[in-house]
Amino acid sequence: MQVSPPQPNGLFEFSLLNTEEKSSARRGRLTTAHGVIETPVFMPVGTQATVKTLHPTEVAATGAQIILSNTYHLMLRPGVEVIEAAGGLHQFMGWHGPILTDSGGFQVFSLASQVKVTEEGASFRSHIDGSQHLLTPERAVQLQLGYGSDIMMQLDHVIGYPAPQKKYYDAMLRSGRWLQRCIDEHARLGAAERGSFLFGISQGGMDAETRKESARIVAEADVAGCAVGGLSVGEPKEMMLDMLEQTTPELPTYKPRYLMGVGSPEDLWNGVARGIDMFDCVLPTRIARNAAVFTPEGRVSIRNSRFRNHHAPIDPTCDCATCTTFTAAYVHHLFRAEEVLGLRLASVHNLRFLAKTMEVIRKSIEDSSFTAEMGRFMATYRPVVKQEAPV
Amino acid sequence: MQVSPPQPNGLFEFSLLNTEEKSSARRGRLTTAHGVIETPVFMPVGTQATVKTLHPTEVAATGAQIILSNTYHLMLRPGVEVIEAAGGLHQFMGWHGPILTDSGGFQVFSLASQVKVTEEGASFRSHIDGSQHLLTPERAVQLQLGYGSDIMMQLDHVIGYPAPQKKYYDAMLRSGRWLQRCIDEHARLGAAERGSFLFGISQGGMDAETRKESARIVAEADVAGCAVGGLSVGEPKEMMLDMLEQTTPELPTYKPRYLMGVGSPEDLWNGVARGIDMFDCVLPTRIARNAAVFTPEGRVSIRNSRFRNHHAPIDPTCDCATCTTFTAAYVHHLFRAEEVLGLRLASVHNLRFLAKTMEVIRKSIEDSSFTAEMGRFMATYRPVVKQEAPV
Repeated sequence: MQVSPPQPNGLFEFSLLNTEEKSSARRGRLTTAHGVIETPVFMPVGTQATVKTLHPTEVAATGAQIILSNTYHLMLRPGVEVIEAAGGLHQFMGWHGPILTDSGGFQVFSLASQVKVTEEGASFRSHIDGSQHLLTPERAVQLQLGYGSDIMMQLDHVIGYPAPQKKYYDAMLRSGRWLQRCIDEHARLGAAERGSFLFGISQGGMDAETRKESARIVAEADVAGCAVGGLSVGEPKEMMLDMLEQTTPELPTYKPRYLMGVGSPEDLWNGVARGIDMFDCVLPTRIARNAAVFTPEGRVSIRNSRFRNHHAPIDPTCDCATCTTFTAAYVHHLFRAEEVLGLRLASVHNLRFLAKTMEVIRKSIEDSSFTAEMGRFMATYRPVVKQEAPV
Repeated sequence: MQVSPPQPNGLFEFSLLNTEEKSSARRGRLTTAHGVIETPVFMPVGTQATVKTLHPTEVAATGAQIILSNTYHLMLRPGVEVIEAAGGLHQFMGWHGPILTDSGGFQVFSLASQVKVTEEGASFRSHIDGSQHLLTPERAVQLQLGYGSDIMMQLDHVIGYPAPQKKYYDAMLRSGRWLQRCIDEHARLGAAERGSFLFGISQGGMDAETRKESARIVAEADVAGCAVGGLSVGEPKEMMLDMLEQTTPELPTYKPRYLMGVGSPEDLWNGVARGIDMFDCVLPTRIARNAAVFTPEGRVSIRNSRFRNHHAPIDPTCDCATCTTFTAAYVHHLFRAEEVLGLRLASVHNLRFLAKTMEVIRKSIEDSSFTAEMGRFMATYRPVVKQEAPV
C-alpha cells in the first residue's frame, strides 16, 4: 500500500490501496472536494452539461462516481459566464459529485473549423455559429476554473490519426510547453485552493519513444494526475495496447492515471491491466442511442426482431433500473416507435454495465483475482472488432 | 351528494362528492381496478405506450392519476398480441395506475390513409407501413380488452372540421349504432368482469340539436361513462364552449363525463364549469417538446434569450421536479443545445402544471369557491388565442 504525498489543503488526494502482482492493475481512492472516487473508475460523459438523455439522479443511480464535461462545448454554449453566474457547473447541471473537464483540445481539433495552431494557442471557428475563438493554455485553465471542475485537463495539441510521426513529435513537445503554462496559470489563480486540480496529458502518436518522452515530461511536471491521450482514435487495438504499455511505466506510481476516450468493456479490462485508474468515453451512451446494449456476451441491437416478444429483461443478470423494471420487448418497442424513453433506458443500462464492470474489476484487484476475472470476462464477451473514434 | 348505482363487481364506481351551485362543476371519485381517481382529472397521453420522453415514475410524480393510450397506434405497433403476451398494457409499459384507451376512431380518421367507412367499420392503411387494416366496433373492444384498459372507448365515426352538418349528422347516427355493437361485444366478452369498462362518445359537429340528440343516445346507453368528442378540433373557442353547454345537460348526472382531446389550462376550467369530470390532451407534452412551458401568467418559450441568465426556477411557485431542481437558465441551455433532458424537464413541468390546476379546481369545488377561483385564474392567465388541434 502506497499513499500519495498529502496535498496542501486535503481537497485532492490519491491513495493506492492494492496492486496486483500478475498485472499492473491498481485499486485506488481519489478524494476530491465533491466526493470520494473508488478507482479504477469509468466516467460517463456529459458533453453539454448533461449526460445525454439522462437526469443526474439516473446517472448517479448507475453507480457513476464522477462525470466528465467538455470545455469546448461549454465555452461556446452556454458560455463560461453563464455557468459562473449559476454558481458553477455542479450547481448549473444539478450534479453534485466530482466533475472532470477536458481542456477543449480534442474537440477543437475534431469539431471546429479553420483551426490554426501557434505557440500561443489554437484559434478556431465554432462549429455552431462560426464565431471566432482563441483557446490558449491559460484560457483553458481559466475556463475550467470558471466551471468549478474538480479535475481540469491541460490544453494539448492533438493530431488526428494517422499522421506523420514528425507531426506527432512536434505537437507532443508543444503540449509539454503548454502544460507548463497551464501549471503556471493554475498556480497564479490559486485553483488548487479552490478545489480544482490539474492533470497533464501525454501524447506522442503511435511511436513508443515519443510516447515515453511525453510520459516523462508529464511525470516530471507538478500536476495532480497524468493522462494518456490520443489513443483509441482509429488505430488497431494491439497498437493502442502497445502504446499504453510503453507509457504507464514512465508515469509516477502515486498519481492517478487517466486513459482518455476509452470505454469499451474489453478496453476497461485492458487498460486496468496496464495500470490505468480512470477512463471516460461517450461510447456507452452513444451506442445506446443507436439501440446497442451491452450484455455479458457482447453488444446486441435491441431493435433486432428477436426481442419483439422477449418479455424478460435485456440482461437477466443486470441490476440496472431498466432491467429491473422493463422487458426487452418494451425497450424494443420504444426504439421501433422512435420514443425517447428508449434512448434513456438503453443509456441507463449501458452506463450501469460499465459501472458494474468497474465494480468487478475493483473487487478482483482487492482479492487478487484480477487476471483470472479478466480471463473469465474475455472468454464470454465478444468485442466489436471495429474501433469507434470518440468525440 | 349523489352516489352511482353500485357496479356488479365493484371494479368501477363513480361517486359525486360535491357540486357547485354557481356552475355545473362537480367533484367526484372514480374507482377502477387499478386505483382511485379524484375528479375532475386531467389524463396525460401516452400514445405509444409511453408518455413521450418520460418514465412512468416521473409521470406519477407529476400527480397524474390515470393516463391515456391509443388503440390505433398500439394495434399497429407493437400489436395487441405483444401487449397481451406481456400481460397487458400496465405490465408492458410499467404504469400500474388506471389506463384509458381510446378506440382508434380519431386516429384512423386523422392519421391513416385510404380510409373507407362502411356500416361494418373503418378500413384503412397504416401510416407506418401502409398495411391494410379493418377496425370495427367489435374489434375496437377486443383490442382494448387485450390491452387490459380500465376504461375503453367506443369506436366512433369522426368527421374532420369543418364539414357539412349532414355529414356530422349521419356519422353521429352511425356512431350511435356502433356504440350498441360495442356494448354487445363488451358484454359478450365479459369485459366488465375483467375490470374493463366502456364509455360512449357523443358527437354531432357544431350543431346544437345534433349534439343534443347524440348526447341522449349515449345517455340512454348501458355504458359506464359518457364522452364528448369532436370538439377543440379547430373551431372557435366560443363555439366549442357552446356545444359543450348544449351537451352536458343531456348526460346522466351519476356517470363520469369526459371531454376528449382538451387540455389547455383555460379549457380545463371552462370544461369543469360546464360539468366535465375528465380531460386528456397531448398539448402539455407536445408544446413542452417545442420549448413552451406553462406559467401562471400564460405560456412562455424557454428558448427565449431572456432565460439565458435566469438562475431561478421557470415558475418560482411551482413544486414540480424540474422547478425544484433546475433553473430556467439550465432548461434554456438544454433546449438551445438540443439536449433530450430539456424535453423531459419541460414535459414534467407542464404535466405538473395541469395536475396542480386540477388540484386547485377540485379543492375549490369542495369549498364552494370554484367560480371565484376560476375568475382569479382567468384574470392572470393569458391564453394562446389560436387553438391547436389534438392528434
